[in-house]
Amino acid sequence: MDLISIRDLEKKEIKEILDSAEEIEAGKKKPDLHGKILATLFFEPSTRTKLSFQSAAMRCGMQTLDFSPETSSLKKGESFHDTIKTVEGYADVLAIRHPKEGAVRLAADVISKPVVNGGDGGNQHPTQTLIDLFSIRKIKGKMEQLNVTLMGDLKHARTMRSLVYGLAMFGSNVTLVSPKGLEMDSTYLEEVSKKFGLNVKMKDKPEYADADVLYVCRIQAERFADPYEAKSVQAKFMIKKEDLKDAKKDLAILHPLPKINEIENSIDEMPQAQYFKQAHYGVPLRMAVLEHVMKR
Amino acid sequence: MDLISIRDLEKKEIKEILDSAEEIEAGKKKPDLHGKILATLFFEPSTRTKLSFQSAAMRCGMQTLDFSPETSSLKKGESFHDTIKTVEGYADVLAIRHPKEGAVRLAADVISKPVVNGGDGGNQHPTQTLIDLFSIRKIKGKMEQLNVTLMGDLKHARTMRSLVYGLAMFGSNVTLVSPKGLEMDSTYLEEVSKKFGLNVKMKDKPEYADADVLYVCRIQAERFADPYEAKSVQAKFMIKKEDLKDAKKDLAILHPLPKINEIENSIDEMPQAQYFKQAHYGVPLRMAVLEHVMKR
Amino acid sequence: MDLISIRDLEKKEIKEILDSAEEIEAGKKKPDLHGKILATLFFEPSTRTKLSFQSAAMRCGMQTLDFSPETSSLKKGESFHDTIKTVEGYADVLAIRHPKEGAVRLAADVISKPVVNGGDGGNQHPTQTLIDLFSIRKIKGKMEQLNVTLMGDLKHARTMRSLVYGLAMFGSNVTLVSPKGLEMDSTYLEEVSKKFGLNVKMKDKPEYADADVLYVCRIQAERFADPYEAKSVQAKFMIKKEDLKDAKKDLAILHPLPKINEIENSIDEMPQAQYFKQAHYGVPLRMAVLEHVMKR
Repeated sequence: MDLISIRDLEKKEIKEILDSAEEIEAGKKKPDLHGKILATLFFEPSTRTKLSFQSAAMRCGMQTLDFSPETSSLKKGESFHDTIKTVEGYADVLAIRHPKEGAVRLAADVISKPVVNGGDGGNQHPTQTLIDLFSIRKIKGKMEQLNVTLMGDLKHARTMRSLVYGLAMFGSNVTLVSPKGLEMDSTYLEEVSKKFGLNVKMKDKPEYADADVLYVCRIQAERFADPYEAKSVQAKFMIKKEDLKDAKKDLAILHPLPKINEIENSIDEMPQAQYFKQAHYGVPLRMAVLEHVMKR
Repeated sequence: MDLISIRDLEKKEIKEILDSAEEIEAGKKKPDLHGKILATLFFEPSTRTKLSFQSAAMRCGMQTLDFSPETSSLKKGESFHDTIKTVEGYADVLAIRHPKEGAVRLAADVISKPVVNGGDGGNQHPTQTLIDLFSIRKIKGKMEQLNVTLMGDLKHARTMRSLVYGLAMFGSNVTLVSPKGLEMDSTYLEEVSKKFGLNVKMKDKPEYADADVLYVCRIQAERFADPYEAKSVQAKFMIKKEDLKDAKKDLAILHPLPKINEIENSIDEMPQAQYFKQAHYGVPLRMAVLEHVMKR
Repeated sequence: MDLISIRDLEKKEIKEILDSAEEIEAGKKKPDLHGKILATLFFEPSTRTKLSFQSAAMRCGMQTLDFSPETSSLKKGESFHDTIKTVEGYADVLAIRHPKEGAVRLAADVISKPVVNGGDGGNQHPTQTLIDLFSIRKIKGKMEQLNVTLMGDLKHARTMRSLVYGLAMFGSNVTLVSPKGLEMDSTYLEEVSKKFGLNVKMKDKPEYADADVLYVCRIQAERFADPYEAKSVQAKFMIKKEDLKDAKKDLAILHPLPKINEIENSIDEMPQAQYFKQAHYGVPLRMAVLEHVMKR
């Protein structure tokens, strides 16, 4: 099977994958995909996601093959369709990232080997969403009835929409904090609410006193016409050590990384900082995903 | 042993390699080169060939090491000789592609580990020729007494000359279709004819009514002084779905890929289109080659 | 444990690593690190060192993961600290090269997985020094009481300082030959001398009649204001075949490679030329190092 969007997965299936990742992480289980090959095709750079997929594959006993578009036949004018059809013959499963929305779904339709979406444009990045849910469950012991605050540019952050979808599915409360003009699309929120009954609040300045989880994402300067405004907004939304005094003691701060200036460096060493652990959870989670898509 | 040119191989040896690839492809055999390392040294980009070699190596249980000239000591002025001598110590077999004719033979002379030519300039690309022969035999059930039409820029296409050599060796009839000025070198054809007795026809427009196999290769716009002429010739030589009505029902269309505009996209889904399968045959064929060169 | 500088190693520990490399090289021993992953993070290109580390890891049964800074989150402004903390989660041991002195030590302090220094600026490159010592011991049968001449730009060559340190530790005599202005730092030499009692001579023109080992390194044209002077100095320090008539019969010539024009090509084929063998020793030596740092 393929994994293109978090919306393709039933709640039961998500639970299955998270349970499997949990057993892997605890050393109780190790998927054996020895002799199989993962091809990574990243038409847009992302070292972190690629390395995490490769590490996961190796931990399952697989080998990895990297297709790099820079030095490839794409330059000679080959179509995406032809590239995918060719690489299909070299591997057993493909992890694809592409700048265009829908490109990975198209790839999955064209070939018969399993395809995992490593991010397609502003659209979907399902393994990141699964890592986020896994991290929350692992750190908080549950995914239900938590207060989760998402903060940053929620208009453009690809994975934030999917995370809201997942949190709603499992019945957590969501607070969305974003600068004016960078709010999450309201039509989308209504749609999710209709489906799962979402308890959502929206705010335009940092506030997370009652949050169990604070999920931070970047606010890119490029989104603002005025560079001074960009700097001022970024400064206002940056999390400082002193801000944490008013937060819950067991607040968990997550971030998809790379972080630039959203979180003060000194926070890295505090127990609230869970983002490096979150990044590391990418490996057991993707091991579970590889096993999941390859066994069907 | 090394594999530098198809001309270094006896007919018997080619048969041996193809037979071996056939058993591998059918899952009846799997070369075990576990613990060995293939180094790929591509001084000219070619994702397809490189990935195919790497995949083949992994399927034999090997690991692969990639030397990329862009970030290497070559920039500091190191000689090709020194680079090869050094990398020799890191691997058990080397697959080398180089823009200069003869460079790979030179590399093979300098070191004692087996070397496989991954293409040297306009000269040789023996594993591609073996894939072509293997594909023809696999799809047609034989390599003898077939009508094989080669079409495109036969003057510059590296692998076309070697394919004619192989087809002549096994006694198939060859029709060469190319735009005026892009014909295959006649001295070369005479030489092959003298050696094996080649039945060859030459044409300057598309015609393949009696062909069992139609092998298409690219006509690059850069070969023409006049861009309008280039476009017009490319259009004339493009294979369209409707053209296939006059062809044999079981015609097999091959192409070394990447294809740009030589074959109409709609043909991809037709049973005549065998080029993706041909690309995939690269893996079992190169597995057979790796085993072949490493066992001696 | 980490391996950041040759100075972190006791004499006993160096001997242990060299002995281990010797057994590996002789095929009497093979470290089994199957299932483990080496991440290579080269923030400065060095194909040779990277390939050698990767080959060594594969020979121990490991897989390798390559972090390439060009296509990474570094471009988005991620800190070195964050990159290292993230990659830590993907591998079991990290080999890092960085243009800034001290960067690798910092990385080792930040993470808990073993780190091996693959060269940090003009500072340390401990595996190269171990390869140099190993090569000398392997070729000469000992490291003690040899006459070792180091020749070239001894002011800037990173590994030369460490080699002097190692040679002094084992009680060999050192002659330093370098163009005026490119001498090795005298404060450093005094420090080494104080520690181990170094027998050192300094010369400003090529002279190696009584040398058992001649270790050559590059003199870069960029070090000279006047390009004519650069050429003239390079020519004067180049080793020519005829020069070897006055040298010891069993002189061993070493070079860290890549060599450009320090050694006449015709010398490559002479028994004195040991630099390719030296490069190849990088594999067993690094196998021994990987085992050494991972077992503690």
